[in-house]
Amino acid sequence: MSTLTDSTYHSLIAGTPTPGNGGTVRAIDPAADAETGPEFTLLGTDQLQAATQAASEAFSVYRRLSPEARAAFLTTAAEKIQAAGEEIIATAMTETGLPEPRLQGELARTVNQLKLFAKVAATGDHFGVRIEPALPERKPLPRPDLRQVQVPLGPVAVFGASNFPLAFSVAGGDTASALAAGCPVVFKAHNAHPGTGQLVGQAISEAVAEHNLPGGVFSLVYGPGTKVGQALVEDPRIKAVGFTGSRGGGTAIMATANARPEPIPVYAEMSSVNPIFVFSSALAGERTALAEGFVTSLNGSAGQLCTAPGLIFVPEGADGDDFVAQVGTALAEASGFTMLTPGICSARINGEKKLSSIAGVSQVGRGAEGATENAPAPAVYTTDVATFLNTPELSEEIFGAVCLVVRYSAPEQLTAVAQGIEGQLTATLHLNPEDDADAVVARDLVQDLELKVGRLLVNGWPTGVDVGDAIVHGGPFPATSDGRSTSVGTLAIHRFLRPVAFQNVPAALLPEQVQDENPWKLTRRLDGQYQLAD
Amino acid sequence: MSTLTDSTYHSLIAGTPTPGNGGTVRAIDPAADAETGPEFTLLGTDQLQAATQAASEAFSVYRRLSPEARAAFLTTAAEKIQAAGEEIIATAMTETGLPEPRLQGELARTVNQLKLFAKVAATGDHFGVRIEPALPERKPLPRPDLRQVQVPLGPVAVFGASNFPLAFSVAGGDTASALAAGCPVVFKAHNAHPGTGQLVGQAISEAVAEHNLPGGVFSLVYGPGTKVGQALVEDPRIKAVGFTGSRGGGTAIMATANARPEPIPVYAEMSSVNPIFVFSSALAGERTALAEGFVTSLNGSAGQLCTAPGLIFVPEGADGDDFVAQVGTALAEASGFTMLTPGICSARINGEKKLSSIAGVSQVGRGAEGATENAPAPAVYTTDVATFLNTPELSEEIFGAVCLVVRYSAPEQLTAVAQGIEGQLTATLHLNPEDDADAVVARDLVQDLELKVGRLLVNGWPTGVDVGDAIVHGGPFPATSDGRSTSVGTLAIHRFLRPVAFQNVPAALLPEQVQDENPWKLTRRLDGQYQLAD
Repeated sequence: MSTLTDSTYHSLIAGTPTPGNGGTVRAIDPAADAETGPEFTLLGTDQLQAATQAASEAFSVYRRLSPEARAAFLTTAAEKIQAAGEEIIATAMTETGLPEPRLQGELARTVNQLKLFAKVAATGDHFGVRIEPALPERKPLPRPDLRQVQVPLGPVAVFGASNFPLAFSVAGGDTASALAAGCPVVFKAHNAHPGTGQLVGQAISEAVAEHNLPGGVFSLVYGPGTKVGQALVEDPRIKAVGFTGSRGGGTAIMATANARPEPIPVYAEMSSVNPIFVFSSALAGERTALAEGFVTSLNGSAGQLCTAPGLIFVPEGADGDDFVAQVGTALAEASGFTMLTPGICSARINGEKKLSSIAGVSQVGRGAEGATENAPAPAVYTTDVATFLNTPELSEEIFGAVCLVVRYSAPEQLTAVAQGIEGQLTATLHLNPEDDADAVVARDLVQDLELKVGRLLVNGWPTGVDVGDAIVHGGPFPATSDGRSTSVGTLAIHRFLRPVAFQNVPAALLPEQVQDENPWKLTRRLDGQYQLAD
Repeated sequence: MSTLTDSTYHSLIAGTPTPGNGGTVRAIDPAADAETGPEFTLLGTDQLQAATQAASEAFSVYRRLSPEARAAFLTTAAEKIQAAGEEIIATAMTETGLPEPRLQGELARTVNQLKLFAKVAATGDHFGVRIEPALPERKPLPRPDLRQVQVPLGPVAVFGASNFPLAFSVAGGDTASALAAGCPVVFKAHNAHPGTGQLVGQAISEAVAEHNLPGGVFSLVYGPGTKVGQALVEDPRIKAVGFTGSRGGGTAIMATANARPEPIPVYAEMSSVNPIFVFSSALAGERTALAEGFVTSLNGSAGQLCTAPGLIFVPEGADGDDFVAQVGTALAEASGFTMLTPGICSARINGEKKLSSIAGVSQVGRGAEGATENAPAPAVYTTDVATFLNTPELSEEIFGAVCLVVRYSAPEQLTAVAQGIEGQLTATLHLNPEDDADAVVARDLVQDLELKVGRLLVNGWPTGVDVGDAIVHGGPFPATSDGRSTSVGTLAIHRFLRPVAFQNVPAALLPEQVQDENPWKLTRRLDGQYQLAD
């Protein structure tokens, strides 16, 4: 099992520890507000090219692997991470302040996600093969033989998130889907959890070596501030970018990618307030469980989930008053959890200060501060729908357990809200589907929200993202930079592919995917009709 | 049948002729270098909002049409264009200088393309439905019910090309695929063929009316210069852009779209020199037919095809010398055709001047000028591979029948060429597949070129794009702004879609595509397995 010692650690360029010339960093234990763990050297931008060049060279081999070979590699990577799980979780707990059960769940998710993408790679559905054989007798012109296949874009730069040190970090969804697609990955380590990243990076590098793949299939690079990240996006060998983080960080990367001589796709997941729309019918019965469920969703992981609720719309009237009061009660019994970094904590405190100072906004309730450093109390505020619609700042995300209750007087006001909001990862409706009046409004609201979100839920909470074939974790700007995609689930593999057609190419020059013999036993389309693999 | 008279014509905003306040334009007959046909009023940017607002309102109805209803509308549009075909072709001949057989073929392609997208819309494969039913007993957490469907992005702005006044214009591929996806279209008319555009626009508008669809499903707008186009891309109601034209025009639209508060996808097809690689084995036998085939591909439509060959690599030695000589002979018997506009003709003449003045470049041969105005002689130049690799300007597109023959001494040099070129729509290999030595080089070259092109051909000519299920008309930048897509063929519908997931949404609130009953009889994925429609 890998263990971090007191020695100094480095970027893993094509599997090789590579001392950086850009200074060093140590992790901060946010619970103690103190440095912890070993030193990590930071790469200078002049050193980055070694990683991108290795990725570029590895690409020519890695992209041609058979589905089985790629799946086997991803499975080994998953197993290596699982094997190092105890040390990874212990390190992540110290570096992020996240509690053990949460990190155990996240480790399982990360491992299963790699195994899921191994299955995707093995099946090969993502090759999207389409074949139209030649029709020499067609009039007025013969039809050529045409065979289409999706090919990988090239080396991908991935930037991990602070809030998921495993599932959205070194071996997270972007890495898994890029590797499954056939793209080498250069991962920019998050300096908020350098040790966690090192352990996971070692596990992937070991899997690369064990399968005799070129080392450049995966590199982990530490860098100071944003310089190395920007240089990575500018590097001509990099052909796509995955990012999870702030709106400012994501839009900066978009600008850099668009300004390249050859612009490249950027998949940045950025900002979402995940509105919840509570209908009267949802409040007619038992309200305590609903209020408690809401506070649990709000306060879990200190509110540091991309899908945490930042806005909840509650009807005026006695039932709504009671629900809000019960939210206050549940909140009073809740305590703050340690936030990921002192910087994130201070941004959250400032965000709450700004919110509470806006005219027409008042406090519903607060919990207690947590016992550690950087553990502010969860808090809920309230305003009315008119104030909300007239105050754009009220739609801005506060990353942390702070939520705004917006009281509305008529369900039709929710339409104006839905049509006015920016793009979101999720929206949620709470209602009694048997209630005829609500059903009419809900039907329209669902259709409006469909244009604004990646995922729409009824009678649930947006936190908790099931990794599978049907999930969408995405949405229109600014939820992401590219709403045509998802960062979670099997569809994510399509981010890193593009179509190529082969016309009248002799069998000996055709890639396996489009050969008549179908050696990889792929599901393919023949003259527009699916032909299922057996 | 629609006929243009002497009266003045206008933009068709949601089907209604709308006089513009931005001046007027008339077509130029490039064969005579003289104005022709009626006047068309140009919209001021202040008038554009009527079209985008109508598109936005139409979207809420149009996007929910059943597959059959959308297919029926597209089929009617195809039939109306077919019915007006004689007048459309006569008008296009005068406005573009293109000959009748070419325009007859293009009309058939345009009509068939609309019918093909009607079929795509009817099948509904593009909804990409993925369903994972709830697993309440799953451990450690129950699985929610998740249902994914691809939804249309919203109103699309389309900019047509001058060189395909039908197949890449008002009712061209971008319009057809956007309408099939469920997106209303605001089409910016090309001022080089305003009458052709008017007739086709009338046909589509009639189809919209006949099917009782909101008029905003389709608008045709005339504008002065680039102002209206830029305002269209900036309009917040527009959610994607399709463009075919120059690299300068395409990159300007990309910049405008990226600078919006909400950036949107741009699909611009721009620039390609479509390299052809001739192997020794292809020259061992009969060379005359090959040389004649090449000159026909080069000179067809006056070289004004996106896939026209601009570069051809020919081995040194006697066979290669003879092939080049035969190209000269075939060229000497060829005449120039009328180009689309005086501006395009003058750019082509300047491009040839610049090419011929580069050190190390010499002329292979020229044809005769055409009998009309704006009909320069087709011309072929030559240089050696070292000069080519050291002179980046030699890779720039000259829009028109001008081609550069690059002589190489060793097939391995082609690898350096393939790795160095920019993104292309096509690349072509000519070889004898039975030749073992060539097969080895070709296999590597195919893999290098796969990273640079959208379509790879063997022993054919890149001009001629078959519209079907397997074609790719796209490629990495600068061939297009977004290599993840194609502008021709059924895959193009995916440009205008994005995924949405419904989680635990009651049946009554689910869209038809993901309902258990599968009322639209779609092919869907259930737990990751395709379930074919019957």
